[in-house]
Amino acid sequence: MFTILFSSLLAAPAAAISNGLARTPQMGWNNWNSLGCDVSQDLLLDTSKVLLDSGLRDVGYEYVVLDDCWQGERGQNGYITYDEQKFPNGMKYIAGKLHDMGFKYGMYSSAGEMTCARFEGSLDYEKEDAEIYASWDVDYLKYDNCFHMGRFGTAKLSFDRFNAMSQALNATGRPILYSLCNWGEDYVHTWGMSLANSWRVSGDIYDHFDRPDALCSCNDPRDPHCVAPGSHCSVMNIINKVAPYVDRGGPGGWNDMDMLEVGQGGMTDSEYVAHFSMWCALKSALLIGTDLRKLTPNTLTILNNPAVIAVSQDPMGRSATRVRQDFNVKKDKYGQGEIQVWSGPLYPSDQLVILLNAADEDLTMTTDLNEIFVHEGPEGSAPHTKHEYAVYDLWADRMDERQAEKILQGDFKKYQKGWYNSTETPYKEGLTNRDERLMGKKVGTISPKSPELSAKVPRHGVKMYRLVNLSGSSTRYMLHKQEL
Amino acid sequence: MFTILFSSLLAAPAAAISNGLARTPQMGWNNWNSLGCDVSQDLLLDTSKVLLDSGLRDVGYEYVVLDDCWQGERGQNGYITYDEQKFPNGMKYIAGKLHDMGFKYGMYSSAGEMTCARFEGSLDYEKEDAEIYASWDVDYLKYDNCFHMGRFGTAKLSFDRFNAMSQALNATGRPILYSLCNWGEDYVHTWGMSLANSWRVSGDIYDHFDRPDALCSCNDPRDPHCVAPGSHCSVMNIINKVAPYVDRGGPGGWNDMDMLEVGQGGMTDSEYVAHFSMWCALKSALLIGTDLRKLTPNTLTILNNPAVIAVSQDPMGRSATRVRQDFNVKKDKYGQGEIQVWSGPLYPSDQLVILLNAADEDLTMTTDLNEIFVHEGPEGSAPHTKHEYAVYDLWADRMDERQAEKILQGDFKKYQKGWYNSTETPYKEGLTNRDERLMGKKVGTISPKSPELSAKVPRHGVKMYRLVNLSGSSTRYMLHKQEL
Amino acid sequence: MFTILFSSLLAAPAAAISNGLARTPQMGWNNWNSLGCDVSQDLLLDTSKVLLDSGLRDVGYEYVVLDDCWQGERGQNGYITYDEQKFPNGMKYIAGKLHDMGFKYGMYSSAGEMTCARFEGSLDYEKEDAEIYASWDVDYLKYDNCFHMGRFGTAKLSFDRFNAMSQALNATGRPILYSLCNWGEDYVHTWGMSLANSWRVSGDIYDHFDRPDALCSCNDPRDPHCVAPGSHCSVMNIINKVAPYVDRGGPGGWNDMDMLEVGQGGMTDSEYVAHFSMWCALKSALLIGTDLRKLTPNTLTILNNPAVIAVSQDPMGRSATRVRQDFNVKKDKYGQGEIQVWSGPLYPSDQLVILLNAADEDLTMTTDLNEIFVHEGPEGSAPHTKHEYAVYDLWADRMDERQAEKILQGDFKKYQKGWYNSTETPYKEGLTNRDERLMGKKVGTISPKSPELSAKVPRHGVKMYRLVNLSGSSTRYMLHKQEL
Amino acid sequence: MFTILFSSLLAAPAAAISNGLARTPQMGWNNWNSLGCDVSQDLLLDTSKVLLDSGLRDVGYEYVVLDDCWQGERGQNGYITYDEQKFPNGMKYIAGKLHDMGFKYGMYSSAGEMTCARFEGSLDYEKEDAEIYASWDVDYLKYDNCFHMGRFGTAKLSFDRFNAMSQALNATGRPILYSLCNWGEDYVHTWGMSLANSWRVSGDIYDHFDRPDALCSCNDPRDPHCVAPGSHCSVMNIINKVAPYVDRGGPGGWNDMDMLEVGQGGMTDSEYVAHFSMWCALKSALLIGTDLRKLTPNTLTILNNPAVIAVSQDPMGRSATRVRQDFNVKKDKYGQGEIQVWSGPLYPSDQLVILLNAADEDLTMTTDLNEIFVHEGPEGSAPHTKHEYAVYDLWADRMDERQAEKILQGDFKKYQKGWYNSTETPYKEGLTNRDERLMGKKVGTISPKSPELSAKVPRHGVKMYRLVNLSGSSTRYMLHKQEL
Repeated sequence: MFTILFSSLLAAPAAAISNGLARTPQMGWNNWNSLGCDVSQDLLLDTSKVLLDSGLRDVGYEYVVLDDCWQGERGQNGYITYDEQKFPNGMKYIAGKLHDMGFKYGMYSSAGEMTCARFEGSLDYEKEDAEIYASWDVDYLKYDNCFHMGRFGTAKLSFDRFNAMSQALNATGRPILYSLCNWGEDYVHTWGMSLANSWRVSGDIYDHFDRPDALCSCNDPRDPHCVAPGSHCSVMNIINKVAPYVDRGGPGGWNDMDMLEVGQGGMTDSEYVAHFSMWCALKSALLIGTDLRKLTPNTLTILNNPAVIAVSQDPMGRSATRVRQDFNVKKDKYGQGEIQVWSGPLYPSDQLVILLNAADEDLTMTTDLNEIFVHEGPEGSAPHTKHEYAVYDLWADRMDERQAEKILQGDFKKYQKGWYNSTETPYKEGLTNRDERLMGKKVGTISPKSPELSAKVPRHGVKMYRLVNLSGSSTRYMLHKQEL
Repeated sequence: MFTILFSSLLAAPAAAISNGLARTPQMGWNNWNSLGCDVSQDLLLDTSKVLLDSGLRDVGYEYVVLDDCWQGERGQNGYITYDEQKFPNGMKYIAGKLHDMGFKYGMYSSAGEMTCARFEGSLDYEKEDAEIYASWDVDYLKYDNCFHMGRFGTAKLSFDRFNAMSQALNATGRPILYSLCNWGEDYVHTWGMSLANSWRVSGDIYDHFDRPDALCSCNDPRDPHCVAPGSHCSVMNIINKVAPYVDRGGPGGWNDMDMLEVGQGGMTDSEYVAHFSMWCALKSALLIGTDLRKLTPNTLTILNNPAVIAVSQDPMGRSATRVRQDFNVKKDKYGQGEIQVWSGPLYPSDQLVILLNAADEDLTMTTDLNEIFVHEGPEGSAPHTKHEYAVYDLWADRMDERQAEKILQGDFKKYQKGWYNSTETPYKEGLTNRDERLMGKKVGTISPKSPELSAKVPRHGVKMYRLVNLSGSSTRYMLHKQEL
Repeated sequence: MFTILFSSLLAAPAAAISNGLARTPQMGWNNWNSLGCDVSQDLLLDTSKVLLDSGLRDVGYEYVVLDDCWQGERGQNGYITYDEQKFPNGMKYIAGKLHDMGFKYGMYSSAGEMTCARFEGSLDYEKEDAEIYASWDVDYLKYDNCFHMGRFGTAKLSFDRFNAMSQALNATGRPILYSLCNWGEDYVHTWGMSLANSWRVSGDIYDHFDRPDALCSCNDPRDPHCVAPGSHCSVMNIINKVAPYVDRGGPGGWNDMDMLEVGQGGMTDSEYVAHFSMWCALKSALLIGTDLRKLTPNTLTILNNPAVIAVSQDPMGRSATRVRQDFNVKKDKYGQGEIQVWSGPLYPSDQLVILLNAADEDLTMTTDLNEIFVHEGPEGSAPHTKHEYAVYDLWADRMDERQAEKILQGDFKKYQKGWYNSTETPYKEGLTNRDERLMGKKVGTISPKSPELSAKVPRHGVKMYRLVNLSGSSTRYMLHKQEL
Repeated sequence: MFTILFSSLLAAPAAAISNGLARTPQMGWNNWNSLGCDVSQDLLLDTSKVLLDSGLRDVGYEYVVLDDCWQGERGQNGYITYDEQKFPNGMKYIAGKLHDMGFKYGMYSSAGEMTCARFEGSLDYEKEDAEIYASWDVDYLKYDNCFHMGRFGTAKLSFDRFNAMSQALNATGRPILYSLCNWGEDYVHTWGMSLANSWRVSGDIYDHFDRPDALCSCNDPRDPHCVAPGSHCSVMNIINKVAPYVDRGGPGGWNDMDMLEVGQGGMTDSEYVAHFSMWCALKSALLIGTDLRKLTPNTLTILNNPAVIAVSQDPMGRSATRVRQDFNVKKDKYGQGEIQVWSGPLYPSDQLVILLNAADEDLTMTTDLNEIFVHEGPEGSAPHTKHEYAVYDLWADRMDERQAEKILQGDFKKYQKGWYNSTETPYKEGLTNRDERLMGKKVGTISPKSPELSAKVPRHGVKMYRLVNLSGSSTRYMLHKQEL
């Protein structure tokens, strides 16, 4: 029996990581994708100000995460120090400033002798490092995999290595979100839930929609042990890798498809919209990766769409799953091209549908009730196919770029007004109350008499729909399983 | 030397699991496929009544197995409790009721910190849980693989984890059938026999004949370590996965192709017949998965065919093996299509032949004596090709649906009369006596002069034959090996 | 540095298995392929008589090996017993009889809780079993892999399991040839030499030249961990599996391509000749598998060709390697078809060349000096390409079938007379003296001026040549490495 | 986070191997490829004289490495001895002679019970062997992988085995460059840096550009566990294997693509130039493999090109990465054919570009700024694409063969005069000063207005360019990461 049912809304989970965090996928910002080692106190504080002033905090981006290159030497007592040039007031000072602004503070280390940037790693210093993070009021740890001293190759070897930090963090008594980053090695999707709040599932993302790259050589989802998980994995590469185990995440622990590239410059608007939509739909950890000090209006209108973020933060916490993949479409200059249909349950009894066009041309894509509910029963055997649904387009109410421009110019109070604010109204509450800002725009209905859902989907783009069951109080999966 | 010979009918096996159970593949019912977590005392008792009244018990369905979601909390003493809402009288009460009706009682847990539905798992509580199952008079344990804390990745790691429960069950002194469910990971077919009565060989089945699904990404039988054994594996996917090691099951321990989907609604009658036939021919554990409270006459006539079940319960316990696979046929909308021929020995000196048409159209399929006996010697070198055989169609005497309808309407005694009753006459006895209800219908003969066996086989269906050697008392494999 | 050089003719090896046996690949007979469990004292003694009377002993078949199914129970003292029905005088009696006839006696067990036929295995009883074998004057142990209790999955796990018996055999003080049979799992070719005299490299052979079979699903030589090494592996399947590591065998330890099927009935004469030639050329252990009590003249003339056996027993002990593989040829009904060229060094400074035609038609095949010596330097850079060679056809002097018939009719002394007798003249001595019975027949010369070697090769057959350097006393590999 | 940043020029690395050696890839000579076991004191001393007199030492070839076959027996005290026939004055004598000539002395052993040539291995004798090497004034150890007693199969098993020698070498107090040779097994690229100065990434090279060979069966870079890493791997095979993890080497630890075949005779001049260029560009360890006593002028002019060697010895130590691979070109007789573009950063802010033509014909190849800087930002998003660059052809100033001939005839002082001498001027100093002998010849410029770089590239050859940024003092990766 493989399907994972979540009774977690009704009862506490039996075990798994017990820090109580990440009941929905974590949201925030991390400097790595745009700035690498170029880190400093100013960067963190300036970025936090943008998050606040742009309204991004209030749609949910809560964690400000400092990546590699902050370290000083490890002291004789075994405790790590920070680089005093980059962080003149120290880490606790930053944590305090962030907390004051309503953020949480994240840091980084590696389960190896060195970090990926060859600073001091935490391997065999888990206890000391966890203690010092807690003493600095850290709320989040991204924990990497470089220079692991050969301690991998079976699930047990990796589990034990990463569990050492999990135990150390728990022992501090401070709830610290544990973001495990081993690039999907050693079947982490089968054991990540037991010790971490999220786990990376692939090599590093880079800022391209589908270009294959020699440095991301693993493209077969059946092959977890390929030589190099890599550092140049495209959006489509990562989507296809995680597709076989999207069901492994859930409240408390999530697949991490790596940080967002939205706004970095290598993709089109359609591509960034598709990238962001899929990260939300697949319940990935959701960390902005661009340099927010240069945030553009266009980028803001992708990152701040509450109707799409509500999919990420859905209280049921279940990923969409892929119900169709078709390669028989036009290929681009890299030889890439396919279309996919994704579908999945949303709170309270809605259904998410995504038409993903990764072909090299605009296409009209069509799905129908049988396909949408195929995972509830194939060939039309699902009772859900007998119901009527209202169809909401989740990108229809995307913020106007002129409004975004005004916000970024500082007219926050005026132009942000009325935008969804999850600090005030959590997504669960908004969804329960059918807040229209979380619903997008109604564009039609589908029913057994007219079961097809069809749309023009731009090249390298998506259409993303919320289906609302109009057929009354039918229990979800009444013929299958009680989940809520 | 690889071929596994079974001398078990003549002498006790040297070792393997020593509980003496499952000399033929276990038969019964399990709630998961149709009902998931929606379990209760009433469900089990109501279902048992159907099994009894429909005659299913008397064709062999003996185990009533409760799957996940029955658990309460684990007590301070380490002992697991049950959900008192769902099971107001407790488990021992249910066991007693089932025993009174002539059934045996099965339960479920997982070799992990949690079960797949995130209730308490048995990992590191094997002793306590086995003891309490025994105290509840449990006869069967389905033991799952979720949340294994990274304890897998080599055969040894998985063996040790599952052996802990095997030892614990043995230590109770109560014979409890041990149904191992690790989805085929870590080469379980090479070690399952040493500690369990059956072992799953794939990700979870779902109710479709051949549709590929992203959640069952492993389709290469050579790849035991694929990322996700999965939860949406079609009938054909599972057949093709197990084909390379069908010979690994035998009396006392069996390949488990997962519970039956017959009656669930996603397949045609032909497809369900093919599904059931192959599960019997390949000696899979045989557990009904549909909700029997809604059992239809059509479904009953598949599940209760004694001539086909006699293949499953054959005393020799040897699986058919695939002797042909041909992809050069019409593909369906999922791109799937192939035909296969399977053949294998039956007690006492008969031969099973299955023509499996997984092409997208009705086809006339043909095999011959050389192909049927290719595993006794290729290219006609097998002495068996020199004999004459009567050919019996095992589905020819399938129960009439009107009769089944009457039975389900309660006229059990009248309309069931004369149907094969294995409670009274075990299959071995029936086969020894050539009970005609186990033989199907004679449809012809084949011989060296007329060696071809040809039949129209419906799309996504089978023809299933028993060949009876008419050439006298020839010893089986007289030029090869003594097995009986 | 990977190429393995053998200085063993000049100096004792540094370590490896230290029993001093199998300086050339072992030769003998084993009952399994033809008789399986049908074993008895009479079988062994009768077979030995045939080996002696047919002259097979005197061309080198020395070991008479009893396979599975001889066991009785394991006694309370931990010592295994034999089946007194099958072996009324016990094993020591048989050993004595065999020794009297000039044979050596081999037995069988498995590194598991049970043997493949489910008799008592030796796992965790290695010491006791080795002691009792030695007490029975056993000279050879075939040690199988069934029911290994999950103790595999890394080279170390398998090494440790099989090393236990290696150490136990050594501890007895009796030289016992250790024939390891783990079907190529866990990269045995990388460690077999350290503990055994031979190691199986594939699933079990069966009596067909190239038919794919579902029970031998592993056909990719890069995949050592495929689910089921299998039991129906064709001659071509095994050749292609071992091709990447033919260089791993050498004096003291050999790749074992499994027992011969020659004479079993499933192949043509050409196919059996090709099968036997390749087993000799690749330095496989060489055990006859057919039932010798029914030995035919045709079979005898394949098995007793001293010019071909001299390749197997060459004192340099280096396998031929494949220098060409071409699939662009006619395929047979199983979709199979390819041609291959193999080449390798022979004592003292000769070269073996095999043209292997696995296409579905007779073909004229051609190679040349550049290809023959490509492994000494590609594109004609090898100095060997500048020499002249006499070409000897090693099958040209195959025994006439009428002569063989006479021998089998009992006229041994008369018709065997003059045939090569390695009991009297070891192969090394014969080769040193250029005994013409080991040379086949000279059929031409090749040289830089006329570098091509061309021949009509029958469908599913070989041409097998010994090239003798006519250019004087050139040192082998004078520009490369000193090996002899 | 996967990309590895090197801050090593600004600060000592946190850990990794701590012997301080190999800040750039080691350069030298090793006897194996040309001479195998044919080693002696004379060989080493004669070769060293050639290295010195030909000027090869002064372009950087510093280590003289003796490979396998030097050993005598292991003494009772556990200490290894040398072969007194081959080395009458012992190893310390040779070391002294080499040191006097300005060379460093390397030796060889294996992490197994035997070396590949079956002499005594160091497994479980690491301490004794390291001590004796140090006592002989050895500066370098090549440490092989043969006969490992099954101690591999997970990264941890291999790490522990090779770490034993690393620790033992460190314990001697003598800095000994540790050249690990496990053929890329067990993901050595993920842990090699922690214990060694270089690690082999493939099976053994052989003297061919692209011919596939059965003895190098692994050609899928995702497959680190293929059965046989092999001994006949072509130049293209190795390049394609290492491509996914070229970024894993860096100052202190390098990917080792195996010793050079330049001069061996199996390749054309273009092929050897391509081979040498790629080994430099990918920062492989760089050891001459040909017999220098027979060094030809042609070979010398490849091996002594300072503009190309400066790429190998670049102080940043970052490999080029592959930015294009295209198989749609003419194939040769082995079915091989492809073209590739490689690009990477050079000190101080230059860029390396290689056009690699592995097609079977001369081709005009073209790249452009977007492709060259794709790893700084795809689709033209990298700021580097906005700059202007001078283009230098690194092979344009290759030494004239007549000059080389004069040098080899002994007119060293006269004809070597003015050639780059890194003994006097280290490459870093030369590059900092823009020494024109390290720049090749300027052949044009590229810029946003004229972004294409196009050249005729010979069949099986390369064009290799250094791009110098003409747009002023732009900081490298100013939008990305600080690396220098």
